[in-house]
Amino acid sequence: MELWFTEKQTKSFGITAKIKQTLHTEQTEFQKLDMIETEEFGNMLVLDGMVMTTQVDEFVYHEMVAHVPLFTHPNPENVLVVGGGDGGVIGEVLKHPSVKKATLVDIDGKVIEYSKKYLPEIAGKLEDPRVDVKVGDGFMHIAESENEYDVILVDSTEPVGPAVNLFTKGFYAGISKALKEDGVFVAQTDNPWFTPDLIRNVQRDVKEIFPITRLYLANIPTYPSGLWTFTIGSKKYDPLEVSEDRFHEIETKYYTKEIHKAAFVLPKFVADLTK
Amino acid sequence: MELWFTEKQTKSFGITAKIKQTLHTEQTEFQKLDMIETEEFGNMLVLDGMVMTTQVDEFVYHEMVAHVPLFTHPNPENVLVVGGGDGGVIGEVLKHPSVKKATLVDIDGKVIEYSKKYLPEIAGKLEDPRVDVKVGDGFMHIAESENEYDVILVDSTEPVGPAVNLFTKGFYAGISKALKEDGVFVAQTDNPWFTPDLIRNVQRDVKEIFPITRLYLANIPTYPSGLWTFTIGSKKYDPLEVSEDRFHEIETKYYTKEIHKAAFVLPKFVADLTK
Repeated sequence: MELWFTEKQTKSFGITAKIKQTLHTEQTEFQKLDMIETEEFGNMLVLDGMVMTTQVDEFVYHEMVAHVPLFTHPNPENVLVVGGGDGGVIGEVLKHPSVKKATLVDIDGKVIEYSKKYLPEIAGKLEDPRVDVKVGDGFMHIAESENEYDVILVDSTEPVGPAVNLFTKGFYAGISKALKEDGVFVAQTDNPWFTPDLIRNVQRDVKEIFPITRLYLANIPTYPSGLWTFTIGSKKYDPLEVSEDRFHEIETKYYTKEIHKAAFVLPKFVADLTK
Repeated sequence: MELWFTEKQTKSFGITAKIKQTLHTEQTEFQKLDMIETEEFGNMLVLDGMVMTTQVDEFVYHEMVAHVPLFTHPNPENVLVVGGGDGGVIGEVLKHPSVKKATLVDIDGKVIEYSKKYLPEIAGKLEDPRVDVKVGDGFMHIAESENEYDVILVDSTEPVGPAVNLFTKGFYAGISKALKEDGVFVAQTDNPWFTPDLIRNVQRDVKEIFPITRLYLANIPTYPSGLWTFTIGSKKYDPLEVSEDRFHEIETKYYTKEIHKAAFVLPKFVADLTK
């Protein structure tokens, strides 16, 4: 018998992956959580039927969400990650020696628990002494924070289920308040092929709050369309004007200082979404 | 009843698309040809079970295989396309006013016939008076050509079935002979996630023949991993040193002169395949 997991990424298109076994399945307080062992991508975390991360391709998303803003800010010391209970973003954040504290706020403690169990090389970084792990509502945490963070990274699920508040203008205003006066934030903002309106709306909302708003891209094979967007909002520093001496050596598999710049060069149909 | 087409892009991973109907299915002399109408991507040409092109995302592949070399060469007049019976590459080639003649050599006349029928906005360009359509063996056509073409574009299927000869060093040597002394060629060379060895081998072989060999990328959602590579071999002109005045206005949805450069900036794990 062959078992295949299929994610319908749209109503009429998706990916399918052969699985060796289901490691864990549970309806948590917030979402359906599945951890499966696939042949092609190793262990895979699936929330509400959507692939969140896999052992094989996790590095793309995690490196690109973290290193672009952390090299944009000249001295990131205090970093907040909203969502990201698998620990992958935190792991990349910690590669920056300037970082003194990294706070993770994920609403679902089960994501953290089962990531530690089945994605230990990713989630293991949550044990680092610089990391403060909070199980709670990222929207509320942001609302209660003021002038506190250098960089905020929003590693959310799609705007269905628990993450719906994280794609609102009110949330971006809260992020602005929670950031210091020269802070930078990044949110994952889905793909330009199937969700162009989402990107257009987020760009519009973030532009009203942050003087510097840009979109950048990375290729993630297990995500819808394979082309993923990240929206960056910055109060002071332009991600396209990072001086060469800011880039220091970090171990990566996707990100380079050249990719940092090239990721902002958008195919015409994607650039059109930012206008 | 719902009908879904699934392409196993590897033994254990693939894409799946809901289809409205099968428009045509046939075992040709060379390969299995299916033309299906999908909900997400419009009409889709499938050869030996692999997606070749779709109405919705065809522009990425066709623009990127054509415009990068055609802007690299300062005056492309005589262009050869090997494969590409759907006509998409030819359509992009014809956007360059310098082109006087574009020859298409596809081994399978049925691909041309059914592309004209079901992908008319793509294949219609084959009717242009500058186009010479030949049904025949691209490998043999190359072997019989000498000092003839400014640009050669290899729009082949994967190296199984009829295209197996098109991924050999002998073929690249033939291309070099068929090109004029300042000629440029591009071949599609699959994806870095599932076929890294193919890319590594092609890079090694092409480098032995062409003084300038480079790899560039584009995002194609219906192709394996969503990240596609193109290998460019050039006798004289460097695709990274195209002077600004070479770029003229053409109507595109993906390619821009900035994308021309950014496409050569490779994620670290991809760059490693070219070393």
